[in-house]
Amino acid sequence: MKKLFAEFFGTFWLVFGGCGSAIFAAAFPELGIGFAGVALAFGLTVLTMAFAVGHISGGHFNPAVSLGLWAGGKFPAKDILGYIIAQLVGAIAAAGVLYVIVSGKSDFVDIGGFASNGYGDLSPGGFSMMSVLIAEFVLTLFFLLIILGSTNVRAPKGFAPIAIGLGLTLIHLISIPISNTSVNPARSTSQALFAGGDFTAQLWLFWLAPIAGAIVAGFIHKALFDKE
Amino acid sequence: MKKLFAEFFGTFWLVFGGCGSAIFAAAFPELGIGFAGVALAFGLTVLTMAFAVGHISGGHFNPAVSLGLWAGGKFPAKDILGYIIAQLVGAIAAAGVLYVIVSGKSDFVDIGGFASNGYGDLSPGGFSMMSVLIAEFVLTLFFLLIILGSTNVRAPKGFAPIAIGLGLTLIHLISIPISNTSVNPARSTSQALFAGGDFTAQLWLFWLAPIAGAIVAGFIHKALFDKE
Amino acid sequence: MKKLFAEFFGTFWLVFGGCGSAIFAAAFPELGIGFAGVALAFGLTVLTMAFAVGHISGGHFNPAVSLGLWAGGKFPAKDILGYIIAQLVGAIAAAGVLYVIVSGKSDFVDIGGFASNGYGDLSPGGFSMMSVLIAEFVLTLFFLLIILGSTNVRAPKGFAPIAIGLGLTLIHLISIPISNTSVNPARSTSQALFAGGDFTAQLWLFWLAPIAGAIVAGFIHKALFDKE
Amino acid sequence: MKKLFAEFFGTFWLVFGGCGSAIFAAAFPELGIGFAGVALAFGLTVLTMAFAVGHISGGHFNPAVSLGLWAGGKFPAKDILGYIIAQLVGAIAAAGVLYVIVSGKSDFVDIGGFASNGYGDLSPGGFSMMSVLIAEFVLTLFFLLIILGSTNVRAPKGFAPIAIGLGLTLIHLISIPISNTSVNPARSTSQALFAGGDFTAQLWLFWLAPIAGAIVAGFIHKALFDKE
Repeated sequence: MKKLFAEFFGTFWLVFGGCGSAIFAAAFPELGIGFAGVALAFGLTVLTMAFAVGHISGGHFNPAVSLGLWAGGKFPAKDILGYIIAQLVGAIAAAGVLYVIVSGKSDFVDIGGFASNGYGDLSPGGFSMMSVLIAEFVLTLFFLLIILGSTNVRAPKGFAPIAIGLGLTLIHLISIPISNTSVNPARSTSQALFAGGDFTAQLWLFWLAPIAGAIVAGFIHKALFDKE
Repeated sequence: MKKLFAEFFGTFWLVFGGCGSAIFAAAFPELGIGFAGVALAFGLTVLTMAFAVGHISGGHFNPAVSLGLWAGGKFPAKDILGYIIAQLVGAIAAAGVLYVIVSGKSDFVDIGGFASNGYGDLSPGGFSMMSVLIAEFVLTLFFLLIILGSTNVRAPKGFAPIAIGLGLTLIHLISIPISNTSVNPARSTSQALFAGGDFTAQLWLFWLAPIAGAIVAGFIHKALFDKE
Repeated sequence: MKKLFAEFFGTFWLVFGGCGSAIFAAAFPELGIGFAGVALAFGLTVLTMAFAVGHISGGHFNPAVSLGLWAGGKFPAKDILGYIIAQLVGAIAAAGVLYVIVSGKSDFVDIGGFASNGYGDLSPGGFSMMSVLIAEFVLTLFFLLIILGSTNVRAPKGFAPIAIGLGLTLIHLISIPISNTSVNPARSTSQALFAGGDFTAQLWLFWLAPIAGAIVAGFIHKALFDKE
Repeated sequence: MKKLFAEFFGTFWLVFGGCGSAIFAAAFPELGIGFAGVALAFGLTVLTMAFAVGHISGGHFNPAVSLGLWAGGKFPAKDILGYIIAQLVGAIAAAGVLYVIVSGKSDFVDIGGFASNGYGDLSPGGFSMMSVLIAEFVLTLFFLLIILGSTNVRAPKGFAPIAIGLGLTLIHLISIPISNTSVNPARSTSQALFAGGDFTAQLWLFWLAPIAGAIVAGFIHKALFDKE
């Protein structure tokens, strides 16, 4: 149970910090943090909560991560469903609090679909569905290779939250223009629920591609890198 | 006594570095560091001094942190008052030195209330009192979850200053547009004293919300995550 | 064999993340990550994969690094060729995937030669061949001094991926305007293959200068710093 | 002797990377790294070389640091002169190589005195001599408190290069607009030699203030924080 609370708080923080920085601070006139600041924020949500509660739940905060770790033989199948529900509840709760805060700004204009992910017309840079599918697949695959490798018994002890958190920063530095960066179905779902319309209709891709990439990474790691 | 000096120097550095970077460098024409640079500066003040004197005083540098650690069962009630006084003296001393340095720039124009915190008309992005209250409460709550979690005996050893410092960077990446980011009553007090007027009248919120968030986090951590 | 896969994935990630962030995100209107974001991305590709697979292959991801480590007495001559081939295959595969993703953006305009390296007219800031030669030589020399020093038995354990990754970030902060920053013949080759034309004709320099700098660094480290 | 080579290479790298990023990349049109990028570069020069050669020479790369460590009882008086000479030679050599590289850009315009430090008319933001004196004193004082604290036997092991390097980044985030940030007489000397004129005439301040701040910090640390 305490593991599920850890996943709830961690995923709340990921959405509140990552999507919150995008909504509040990215495009602030003159002084805004831009895509680079949002990339840093997303990564630091994971870095901080992985240090804070990683020793409790493993610090997944992401359904694709839970499934990729299962595929890599590092997470039991029986815990997957509970983790994913806790992650979704945390993500949606965070989006709700973001919505309440935004409501207190009378002149708020939402230009980015509440930080939702999208392809085609909803891609920040106008990338096609196929481009987004490939990018989300490849990026989540490498995200899991980083997670599985840096938490491996042979990797330096204690550093995994740095590698994983800054890995998520890197992923955002590459791909915010492509898909607004998901690699995390929970984060995509919470924002699409509030953005509605076309964003909800595109949500399937941000479950399919990250999970496929994560599971392939799990198999690659098990086959190539996890042997003694 | 040496603990109080550590808190004095640490909080001086937090205000001198964080508010100083905002006042001197954030809006420098063309090359300014923006909100992202200020966010990094605030976080690095805590990262650096937590490595430097954290082993002496615990490295709070913030009344809300001292109270949150007390609520979480990690800091004795008898030490709270001394710590808070040392933090306030350090913060005010730093604001005074910033004021002297600024006085040496003949064309200095203060556009941000000397880096004070505010809501409503004094919020950088025009967020309401309720939005600021919620944001400061939630952000300080998570700041304490990060502190309590990353210093827990089960967390990786030695990394807490990185998690905590970069956690403060993350908090600023999200919320400078909302409240200019407090999560620290000492930092709010020192700047309001020099900014005066309406900023002083709003100071109550930046004691209330961070402390409430910190204490709730202390109870959450004790109830959910600190059991064996 | 598992070492060669590690080098393949690591160099893929270096090119996909570093050159990808340059191509997709550097010049995005208003919110783009600029040279600083690209510098951070390149460094984080190495930081993350060095934590993930450094314990398998050593985490070179760069022919100049393999040759510099050989010169410093830390890598056997018999493994050099295999490593360099794996690095080249990984780099070219990544450039290919970047090309496919870019093809899904109908209005894509390539302003930077697909993130290729260059001198003279092809230098981002118009630096001469001699300036680029010196810069690439000096920067790779120090890159290897950082690698050899931070992985030395007397250096703090486990931190080398941070020193090396952020060292590559630093190198990019200095020299993107000079040469678009190589210090890595594999990264230069993959991009020149897709950019073609004049970029291919300049490729010799981005093999010569980095490898010369790396080998000199190997000898310096062995002669000055590696003695008991 | 090997310690002096370590100080030579470390200070070369500090000037080459820190001042180089300022000269080449800070003001690049549209994509330039700005003051925040230069701040990061300066800090990473120290972070990287402290990991690489800190175990050889202690990683000072700065006359004020050598003198502050001596005042704090951590560095023998007999070694000071040799260290300072090695640091000066390294800094000047780096400035020379920067000069040669810059000469290969036909349209190069030097707007910042070759990254020199200055006050009054030569301060980037027009700060007075007294403001610069106070800022350099306070910043170097805290730089040494960070160095002495984070290398203390009671601080977490191995993390000092991170605290010290990112501390230097923080110092630059605050004070590039004030003085172009020195806290290091070697770095000021090498740039003033190439900038000449008024910059040379102001060099005294960038020896006086940093060294005074460093020595006071040494005494503070010894008196307050270094007792058992």
